[in-house]
Amino acid sequence: MSYLKNLPEAENKRILIVGGGFAGLRVARKLKGTGYQILMIDKNNYHQFQPLFYQVAASGLEPSAISFPLRRIFKGVPNMLFRMVELEKVEYENNRVLTNKGYIDYDYLVLATGADTNYFGMENIKKYGTPMKSVSEALYIRNRLIANFEEAYTCDSQEKRRQLLNVVVVGGGPTGTELAGAIAEMKRYSLPKDYPTMDFSDMRVILVEMGGRLLNGMSDVAGEKSLKFLESLGVEVMLNAAVKDYDGENVKLEDQEIPSNILLWAAGVAPNPVPGLPEEKFFRGRLKVNEFLEVEGMKNIFALGDLAYFEEEKFPKGHPQVAQVAIQMGDRLAKNFKLIDKKKEPKGFSYTDLGSMATIGRKLAVVDLPFIKFQGFIAWLTWLFVHLMAIVGVKNRLFIFMNWAWSYLNFDASLRLLIRPRKVQHEEEELMIDDSK
Amino acid sequence: MSYLKNLPEAENKRILIVGGGFAGLRVARKLKGTGYQILMIDKNNYHQFQPLFYQVAASGLEPSAISFPLRRIFKGVPNMLFRMVELEKVEYENNRVLTNKGYIDYDYLVLATGADTNYFGMENIKKYGTPMKSVSEALYIRNRLIANFEEAYTCDSQEKRRQLLNVVVVGGGPTGTELAGAIAEMKRYSLPKDYPTMDFSDMRVILVEMGGRLLNGMSDVAGEKSLKFLESLGVEVMLNAAVKDYDGENVKLEDQEIPSNILLWAAGVAPNPVPGLPEEKFFRGRLKVNEFLEVEGMKNIFALGDLAYFEEEKFPKGHPQVAQVAIQMGDRLAKNFKLIDKKKEPKGFSYTDLGSMATIGRKLAVVDLPFIKFQGFIAWLTWLFVHLMAIVGVKNRLFIFMNWAWSYLNFDASLRLLIRPRKVQHEEEELMIDDSK
Repeated sequence: MSYLKNLPEAENKRILIVGGGFAGLRVARKLKGTGYQILMIDKNNYHQFQPLFYQVAASGLEPSAISFPLRRIFKGVPNMLFRMVELEKVEYENNRVLTNKGYIDYDYLVLATGADTNYFGMENIKKYGTPMKSVSEALYIRNRLIANFEEAYTCDSQEKRRQLLNVVVVGGGPTGTELAGAIAEMKRYSLPKDYPTMDFSDMRVILVEMGGRLLNGMSDVAGEKSLKFLESLGVEVMLNAAVKDYDGENVKLEDQEIPSNILLWAAGVAPNPVPGLPEEKFFRGRLKVNEFLEVEGMKNIFALGDLAYFEEEKFPKGHPQVAQVAIQMGDRLAKNFKLIDKKKEPKGFSYTDLGSMATIGRKLAVVDLPFIKFQGFIAWLTWLFVHLMAIVGVKNRLFIFMNWAWSYLNFDASLRLLIRPRKVQHEEEELMIDDSK
Repeated sequence: MSYLKNLPEAENKRILIVGGGFAGLRVARKLKGTGYQILMIDKNNYHQFQPLFYQVAASGLEPSAISFPLRRIFKGVPNMLFRMVELEKVEYENNRVLTNKGYIDYDYLVLATGADTNYFGMENIKKYGTPMKSVSEALYIRNRLIANFEEAYTCDSQEKRRQLLNVVVVGGGPTGTELAGAIAEMKRYSLPKDYPTMDFSDMRVILVEMGGRLLNGMSDVAGEKSLKFLESLGVEVMLNAAVKDYDGENVKLEDQEIPSNILLWAAGVAPNPVPGLPEEKFFRGRLKVNEFLEVEGMKNIFALGDLAYFEEEKFPKGHPQVAQVAIQMGDRLAKNFKLIDKKKEPKGFSYTDLGSMATIGRKLAVVDLPFIKFQGFIAWLTWLFVHLMAIVGVKNRLFIFMNWAWSYLNFDASLRLLIRPRKVQHEEEELMIDDSK
């Protein structure tokens, strides 16, 4: 294990940020031009805008539109560095992390590695289910759906055809709700044009939620309205229902089986593991931090976003694992680094809920703001505006806006191309994401 | 083997077009609204705009920008049908083709299956080399290049780093020339910004051509100028040089070895095979056709484009395998079908060379028109305009224009995202293109 090649020494203190998601990105951007050396590592060379994954899956947006090259943020800024390497272990006693390409020493370590899909120990779901926690996975869903539709079109068994057309989404949070809505809109607007002689009454879009309502993190009215919107689009919403098993062909619920070739699993997240830190630092996989976002008992290691667990007075069971929390934590930590640099006292973190929103379909969204809740067309416009503004990069913003305008005018998500990845046998497939582990 | 599901009977004569490339697409579009039933089959559900593959490879354009969904052409037009199935065999005695999803009967068969990469029997090149005859392969090149650069950045052996940075392109035709130029521009403009502490004097971009000149199908002055342009961009052009072998790490020429992790093979094409037709109908893999583009001795089977071999008086060795020939053949055949429909005599095909062009880099292109040849900035603008107009689809045209404008202003091809495909073990990888056969 050697020191990472091409990595300049830090003249001042080095802050090593692990992960370029909402939290890590915010810390890095806010510390531009300060005296620290900022070094970010991530296993991908791009930031992923998770709230729009479902539009990639539903053929509405290109992966590149919601992915921002992390190198560009660091381009030309002295003392800001990015390396595409994977964290393997934190050697906190030595202020060092091991990566797959060599070790890196740090003065401060910011852990912002986020969360991945939680299968709750169900091995068959992990094996046959399809998650959506990365832009690659979203693109895979798109390809899988199109391949199924094409297969169904020339398939001469009605039973098999239904299995190919049905889509089961599990999880009534924002991801599952938005995904189910988007697929239902495909069924309504674009698929009948693409496959004119196919009978789409054979196709069912089913949303399975364990609890008694949708969008549990939002208001009651948002939950009820989103249910109404989904039903108006033809989604079969099954509340108080749980998936028991899946073999790639039939989804087993408690009281019935649904034939389906694809099970989209959006039922929960689990923090990515951080090898090297003692087990007692974690609570349910999340790193316990104090109000300064320091990992308990470790003065120079911080955890942010989905990975962090902090029992704030208003949030005695920790914060929701959403983008807003990650962004606000990143803001606070960046400000604290600036205070520390000026030998001032850092301030404690406190989360301000700015509200939340979800879009179910064309002109159908639900918005909860602190002082007002609204749904429908205005909510949809609000959702569009907020997400457009939140996207990183002027070019991405412009291209997404044009894509949305185009789709709106044409009633058509236009990227239904089944572009298959190339498989090369002599390679050990290092260009693939292995989902089987 | 059963009749293809969901396929309506033909009320009039059915024209079955195999392949949605330049030739097949042209026939289909020109026969819109005629009395024939037009049925197109293709293994992909999109048309690929081959002239811009190299820009996908060099991170300049998204795959979707140069891929046009074939279903959209057929959308809402009665008597026009598309099916994503693969041709397996022509049973010409029965006026029937077999596909991987069932058989299809035809009245007229139009074979426009194009050409794939020709490795000239070199097994190692086929195994370790990288072709660029599809949008998937172009995207693979992009990912491979970015992965190599990332790897080189953190690699601590100079020898290994050089191997990762070097790029060898084989074939001095338009594809190889344009690809080498685009990669040299990445080296000059965008890579030093992305990898600020890497020494790019270690990186070589090499173009190997067997003959004594570049762009053999074009004028002498175009060949000489393109050589000059490439050298001005820092490409090492090796003329009269042939690749003997490649093991994935070292490219073996007659008199030297070049360490390189990637060998881009653009040295030749071979027609895709058409199983079922007698061997004597072929000349070097191409189907011999008469002036009406009928396969010799078969009144209702036609071959077009790269697949067709026709010894016209002006072209006694057959036509060049380029887009213009395919398009003009498609035009002629569509017109002939209209004539046949009106019980008139079809007319013979004759190729009109409208000229050709290639772009080497920013403001550097060569253009041969029948009455004038020019190079440089005006040629580059001409190239941009012609290719923009040739792209299928208003949206694609708009998005490509914006991408080009953006890149021009920023000196930056902006899509350097290494988005890895997702690998799923339980599937038989039917979403992959298997390149190992």
